[in-house]
Amino acid sequence: MKSLSSLDFLTEALRRLPGVGPKSAQRIAYHLMQHDREGAGLLGRALSQAVEKIHHCAMCNTFTENDVCETCVDAERDAALLCVVETPSDQLMIEQTMTYKGLYFVLMGRLSPLDGIGPKDIHLEKLMARATDGTVQEVVLATNFTNEGEATAHYISETLKARGLKVSRLARGVPVGGELEYVDAGTIARAMLDRRST
Amino acid sequence: MKSLSSLDFLTEALRRLPGVGPKSAQRIAYHLMQHDREGAGLLGRALSQAVEKIHHCAMCNTFTENDVCETCVDAERDAALLCVVETPSDQLMIEQTMTYKGLYFVLMGRLSPLDGIGPKDIHLEKLMARATDGTVQEVVLATNFTNEGEATAHYISETLKARGLKVSRLARGVPVGGELEYVDAGTIARAMLDRRST
Repeated sequence: MKSLSSLDFLTEALRRLPGVGPKSAQRIAYHLMQHDREGAGLLGRALSQAVEKIHHCAMCNTFTENDVCETCVDAERDAALLCVVETPSDQLMIEQTMTYKGLYFVLMGRLSPLDGIGPKDIHLEKLMARATDGTVQEVVLATNFTNEGEATAHYISETLKARGLKVSRLARGVPVGGELEYVDAGTIARAMLDRRST
Repeated sequence: MKSLSSLDFLTEALRRLPGVGPKSAQRIAYHLMQHDREGAGLLGRALSQAVEKIHHCAMCNTFTENDVCETCVDAERDAALLCVVETPSDQLMIEQTMTYKGLYFVLMGRLSPLDGIGPKDIHLEKLMARATDGTVQEVVLATNFTNEGEATAHYISETLKARGLKVSRLARGVPVGGELEYVDAGTIARAMLDRRST
């Protein structure tokens, strides 16, 4: 079989998707061309449209099609609170809890020196400018409780506290519905140290 | 977070890829928008171009941008031999062995009644027309040695033999480099039944 340029081009382009190797790319290309040309056309248009229209919110750094995202322009939110999350998915999870009415800052990543991701890559200068605008009173750090997330929270916390801001972190402890027998020792240790009087 | 139409559209469209669920689609969309906009644009163009240009070869049914694919127009190939494969990847594998100089017919699938894939879906009428064109002397069945592939080969074999054509099937047996201890009993049984005098 000689090379087919459009098919080869598609297979190569599919490899840009995270986790897709040469074999998967070929399988996906064949699947789309054979069974779902409508889906392929749809995805092509969706990608072009997204690249053209989506950019970062000037205030919170999340994805938006406007200059400032809908959350940041919402006048009913408490502008004195700023919650720092790693991704828009994390923001969505916190929104779903209905327990937070402040604003957000989305890092779009986490510090990870091994992967070459430093303070610049997670927009820390933008966060500093945002947090020291005079309106923000407290920064709630809601990065993940992984090693990288914890390191990111620590780094941001030190930097913000040096500028006199109040910084807090989501509480750690036993998950709701958790049975001690099945919770890891590190979590129980933390829950013991952070125990609350009732 | 309120809905972002371009991002939601992209996430929905990504779910058309095989094996991609809602969570993966969202992760891929964030990854492309955050880390690989160039790749997203490239993939968008590749998909649109592929949908527009790629169709099936009039002779062998494989993907091509021309009316007839490069393999079918190659005058040096033996038009008396027709090898039936399930997918273009299978054709490529056979080409790489350098042991076959005939033409191909690509089913683009296999019979699979449980999935609702019948003779029409694997272009059997086109294959019949192709195999009975007067030039083809022998049809080599090279569908996979899975249950569906074997059933497909059996069905095609019966249909073609009824029209007086010579039909053959790839040999089954112990793979090259195979150690009997690690080969399954079914393969050894078949190799024993099909044993050849040396």
